[in-house]
Amino acid sequence: MRMVDLNCDMGESFGAYKLGRDEEILKYVTSANIACGFHGGDQATMRKTVKLALEHGVAIGVHPGLQDLIGFGRRDMDISPQEAYDLVVYQIGALWAFVKAEGARLQHVKAHGNLYNMAARNAALAEAIAEAVYKVDPELILYGLAGSELIKAGSKAGLRTASEVFSDRTYQSDGSLTSRRLPDSMITDEEVSLKQVIRMVSEGKVLSQQKVDVPIQADTICVHGDGVHAVEFASKIRTSLEAAGITVQAPGKTTGLNA
Amino acid sequence: MRMVDLNCDMGESFGAYKLGRDEEILKYVTSANIACGFHGGDQATMRKTVKLALEHGVAIGVHPGLQDLIGFGRRDMDISPQEAYDLVVYQIGALWAFVKAEGARLQHVKAHGNLYNMAARNAALAEAIAEAVYKVDPELILYGLAGSELIKAGSKAGLRTASEVFSDRTYQSDGSLTSRRLPDSMITDEEVSLKQVIRMVSEGKVLSQQKVDVPIQADTICVHGDGVHAVEFASKIRTSLEAAGITVQAPGKTTGLNA
Amino acid sequence: MRMVDLNCDMGESFGAYKLGRDEEILKYVTSANIACGFHGGDQATMRKTVKLALEHGVAIGVHPGLQDLIGFGRRDMDISPQEAYDLVVYQIGALWAFVKAEGARLQHVKAHGNLYNMAARNAALAEAIAEAVYKVDPELILYGLAGSELIKAGSKAGLRTASEVFSDRTYQSDGSLTSRRLPDSMITDEEVSLKQVIRMVSEGKVLSQQKVDVPIQADTICVHGDGVHAVEFASKIRTSLEAAGITVQAPGKTTGLNA
Amino acid sequence: MRMVDLNCDMGESFGAYKLGRDEEILKYVTSANIACGFHGGDQATMRKTVKLALEHGVAIGVHPGLQDLIGFGRRDMDISPQEAYDLVVYQIGALWAFVKAEGARLQHVKAHGNLYNMAARNAALAEAIAEAVYKVDPELILYGLAGSELIKAGSKAGLRTASEVFSDRTYQSDGSLTSRRLPDSMITDEEVSLKQVIRMVSEGKVLSQQKVDVPIQADTICVHGDGVHAVEFASKIRTSLEAAGITVQAPGKTTGLNA
Repeated sequence: MRMVDLNCDMGESFGAYKLGRDEEILKYVTSANIACGFHGGDQATMRKTVKLALEHGVAIGVHPGLQDLIGFGRRDMDISPQEAYDLVVYQIGALWAFVKAEGARLQHVKAHGNLYNMAARNAALAEAIAEAVYKVDPELILYGLAGSELIKAGSKAGLRTASEVFSDRTYQSDGSLTSRRLPDSMITDEEVSLKQVIRMVSEGKVLSQQKVDVPIQADTICVHGDGVHAVEFASKIRTSLEAAGITVQAPGKTTGLNA
Repeated sequence: MRMVDLNCDMGESFGAYKLGRDEEILKYVTSANIACGFHGGDQATMRKTVKLALEHGVAIGVHPGLQDLIGFGRRDMDISPQEAYDLVVYQIGALWAFVKAEGARLQHVKAHGNLYNMAARNAALAEAIAEAVYKVDPELILYGLAGSELIKAGSKAGLRTASEVFSDRTYQSDGSLTSRRLPDSMITDEEVSLKQVIRMVSEGKVLSQQKVDVPIQADTICVHGDGVHAVEFASKIRTSLEAAGITVQAPGKTTGLNA
Repeated sequence: MRMVDLNCDMGESFGAYKLGRDEEILKYVTSANIACGFHGGDQATMRKTVKLALEHGVAIGVHPGLQDLIGFGRRDMDISPQEAYDLVVYQIGALWAFVKAEGARLQHVKAHGNLYNMAARNAALAEAIAEAVYKVDPELILYGLAGSELIKAGSKAGLRTASEVFSDRTYQSDGSLTSRRLPDSMITDEEVSLKQVIRMVSEGKVLSQQKVDVPIQADTICVHGDGVHAVEFASKIRTSLEAAGITVQAPGKTTGLNA
Repeated sequence: MRMVDLNCDMGESFGAYKLGRDEEILKYVTSANIACGFHGGDQATMRKTVKLALEHGVAIGVHPGLQDLIGFGRRDMDISPQEAYDLVVYQIGALWAFVKAEGARLQHVKAHGNLYNMAARNAALAEAIAEAVYKVDPELILYGLAGSELIKAGSKAGLRTASEVFSDRTYQSDGSLTSRRLPDSMITDEEVSLKQVIRMVSEGKVLSQQKVDVPIQADTICVHGDGVHAVEFASKIRTSLEAAGITVQAPGKTTGLNA
């Protein structure tokens, strides 16, 4: 049986500032990556988002980001592996407490924005993040870009990992994402996007921009929550996957981690 | 057997900014209140301070503060009980993760600065803090000013509490501290200070400024870590207490909470 | 000739977070209160908002707030007059630079949220704010609640002041606003609201909730920029004022301050 | 007549956190680079440091840093030229207001930490910073590493510049500083350090690590204010320069900018 997870970033509102359509998107995804107050989010938003996710039966993950609120964690920062470790330990704990207060458990950790991007290509950062996750709770599932240093580091550390793929991005023949600085990095045609995702999950392959079939591990699909058509598209992805005979469920479900 | 705990705020350094003489004071105290990045402290400092406390066999507590770094959490802020709850849940979690990563456990929660002061007199804030602690971990010990609303709220919530007394402050006949705005609020004579502390622990009494004996619960004594003579005085308090036949130990010790 | 100013808070977006419909509201108001990064706003937003205001010929004012981003400056904080002075000097300067870089000048200063509220009733804070404004630039116009301590302090300091009235709030017989904690503090009927505003400007009177006519100075009217009907209502207020023969213009216009 | 400026970073304390020995170092330097609350410093510290500098007759400069308080502005961040422009405009304004409130004027702008380092080698960032300074006040002097992109950009923008040299760093044959990652990047022998500085000012030359004489422009010397021997060494540099017949004065003095 083919299975895949649909994950979405959420809980990124901050104080008086609202972001995302969390409540609507929760109807379609199976895992929620909840911000922890560094790149976005705050303690009140965390509490509310944890409750919302639980009400929708969606598995909860930590979404640690760079300490750059004004940049929303989307700017490279020259942090050391030790700094990455500390960022991740702290943010796992902060979210853990809200989940614990509701009598639930954390399922996974998915780094945000440029912490995710830097950890995809920098082995030292990746290992520091994996160590942070493992030391706080070795049962947490580490999400990362399929084929990335982060996935390697997670496996090496003894963590269960979930390889993430993107429905709206094109791929290179080495399995990496086409840089956003290049034309054709984004897939704008929804049908093409849905077909790519289904093929990645069903066949474990993606057609690169160089027209070569590349093997790819697709455990979880990133769904956006803040664009205009985000909710509608999330619904379509879910429907299309299920119509293709793929079970959409959180990876922790099989081990009871999001029970 | 008379017993008392010596607690000290620490881990309040922030980035390039150093504060306190944590390593020295850890030789004399039995419980450490570690800042969590809101009024002071940061993730690197938390990691280092947790390790230091463990090396010295000192029990670890969360020291949640107001979200006012520039004011060091020392200004009253008109926060709601819900905001207090969120502040405390978040900060417990953040420190918990560093303690968990080292294979240890948290012993207690002691609010910082004006969160402590506001919770001493405001029942709604006190109850919100007690609920936060209880919901994250009902085995945590809640520290609070002896006779305060916070201690009452902790008991009511089903938490074990530790009533805190001050060696360097004078008391009023209703058991409250003399306001710092009044003259004679501070005891500057070390001998007077030591005698007051020993009597509070041994006899459960303190002589008020009105020259009346007032009953007081003295489970833990607040020791300062950043004054010029702080370390020296911490050493004297400990020696004096032990010379008076009082056992100085963390309250969690009896239940294995700081094992 | 009757004249009045329409002012609106703006530039309160922060990083990835968007707030308010600044560009639309600028068509109807004559003075813009631009946030400076403390309660909201940031340096990029300040630059953009200054340019937008200049394009629309709207006078520019500083909108200094409490250093409480997560609370959007809307919580009372126990700050000293010296702290208020420092907050205001800093924020005037920060916005001044963006205005200067565009070859323009500042017209006024209007405190935000609870800095505004606290300065309305606390003479010491009011005097500190007035001193801050005067020392940085004695030609700046100080906005404040009509009849407030801030207006008194501004006059005393030698500043030109602009007394602010609200179209959507009811008044008490002593000229103060009805507390938001009381029922009937808000006027929800647009027609009632428009009539109240026109009468305040034309006759210098407002009918209190106790059904007594109260004298009121109405130099500037606060218009909201973030509600659903905010833009539409701003348009209506302007049209109604002009239809009543009232000139709607920035107070600095007469002295060339917003040239 | 040979002249040189001695500049020192100061005003980097933040809230309860104290940094540097500003008052002592002000006796020996001629220009003060005052932090503006981004990498360090805060509004109260700015006010106090401006007053201190004026009391000592030391010229005042803006010391804008990256928006990274926890990292003290010492980590590379991938900011855009527009972001650099905004950072610098904002911070110039913030300090300007405190200087204006005291009836004085700003002399210069010196970027802090990694904003300084990035602007030394990145022409686009350098040009954005130079534009920010020029647009706010074209009479401000732009400090930068001798031979850097920032000095070039300043000249190109029409600003007066001051080329900065270091007494405690070794140089390469291309005039650049030896990377701190290499051995022998620092000069630890005070005598060697003093001789290097005097020669840079008197002869406009420095002996590189490759034992080649390199031409260098030495308008201002960076003096540290926070090391153990910082104050003592600042005194020695000043005495040694004067003994060598060099006039130590702020660059703005000749044009009355720090009057």
